[in-house]
Amino acid sequence: MEKFALIVAGGSGSRMGAEIPKQFLELAGKPVLMRTMERFAAYDPSIRLALVLPADQTTRWNELCHTHQFTLKHKVAIGGESRFQSVKNGLALLPADGLVFIHDGVRPLVTVQTLRNCEETAIKSGNALPVIPVVESLRQLAGDSSHHVDRSQFRLVQTPQTFRLDLIKKAYLQPESPRFTDDASVCEALGEKINLVPGNPENIKITHPADLKLAKYLWPGLD
Amino acid sequence: MEKFALIVAGGSGSRMGAEIPKQFLELAGKPVLMRTMERFAAYDPSIRLALVLPADQTTRWNELCHTHQFTLKHKVAIGGESRFQSVKNGLALLPADGLVFIHDGVRPLVTVQTLRNCEETAIKSGNALPVIPVVESLRQLAGDSSHHVDRSQFRLVQTPQTFRLDLIKKAYLQPESPRFTDDASVCEALGEKINLVPGNPENIKITHPADLKLAKYLWPGLD
Repeated sequence: MEKFALIVAGGSGSRMGAEIPKQFLELAGKPVLMRTMERFAAYDPSIRLALVLPADQTTRWNELCHTHQFTLKHKVAIGGESRFQSVKNGLALLPADGLVFIHDGVRPLVTVQTLRNCEETAIKSGNALPVIPVVESLRQLAGDSSHHVDRSQFRLVQTPQTFRLDLIKKAYLQPESPRFTDDASVCEALGEKINLVPGNPENIKITHPADLKLAKYLWPGLD
Repeated sequence: MEKFALIVAGGSGSRMGAEIPKQFLELAGKPVLMRTMERFAAYDPSIRLALVLPADQTTRWNELCHTHQFTLKHKVAIGGESRFQSVKNGLALLPADGLVFIHDGVRPLVTVQTLRNCEETAIKSGNALPVIPVVESLRQLAGDSSHHVDRSQFRLVQTPQTFRLDLIKKAYLQPESPRFTDDASVCEALGEKINLVPGNPENIKITHPADLKLAKYLWPGLD
């Protein structure tokens, strides 16, 4: 089955307190987004890469590719008004069949093992969602009160959310809904069962400056 | 109101893959447990410290205090068969009135601001629980299936769980129950409303070797 990675880079950088969008900040000498794309190429050199970028970042991206001599071949789609629209635009670049890893551009610390877990299960069962356990106690809010819940019954969700292309393309034909908080929820709305697979705790989303610091710390030890 | 910190150090080190109990591993040149106790002394030099240690670690602890010239005055209680029993033994060292911060010995990265939040609310309302938001998407397991839940309705719980001493001593007179997963749940069983206050994300529990690495990285920047 042909494999695709759809890398979604929507950030404008405001939460990072930087003028540079977070996906362009450097990790080990290269923009985070390049590091993320390289993870997929390292996993499988035959994987085909597609990138979704905000319209006003494509020129900058091309310049960065030139500066960093970034030669990984990839298609580029333009982001939409929402993540749903951005993913939909990206999926339009891909064929009807195959397997797609839909991944946050600012998660460069995904491991080969996580990608393997996603691939194996998505091929077998149509979709796969990498998750990690909740390691702290958990409370649920209820009005102005709260109560303890059993953390072992919960999982934290990462990306790449991985799907057979026919399935996820069909899911993205549905009208956008506020219930769609990630790709799995779009797929779930078709009545599909979502399959959870083990992710890796280092696979953090770089959203705040402290996350980038942590990523720099974690980076050298990654498999 | 007189303030007490009850530091609970129950770990044997097995999950750290080390023969040294995790609370005795070094952070910036001193055992984690000393670093944790120093945070409270830094917050308020008049705070009174009590420590709960497994019986077979007291000799080692005394030796470490000597080696590291650790002069922070503190009482020591012996740990019980469960965390509930250990906290109960620790509380027996403390007077009937005042405020107690019950804190994991392996959380040396609690900030002054978190301690202040706990103190202010616990004085006013009897108890305070430091929590942080869930930053990843969250799914709840249900049999062999799972469903998306709204992460904004959940909080991750840290320590110090902070209580008026009269209240928490009364709570610990109850018979031990499997429902008691932390001090807040013991207090809650009295019918008390639990008050949540902002914690700090760096306030991790050092459980695995990677946590200690992360703590070493986070340590120098702590307020």
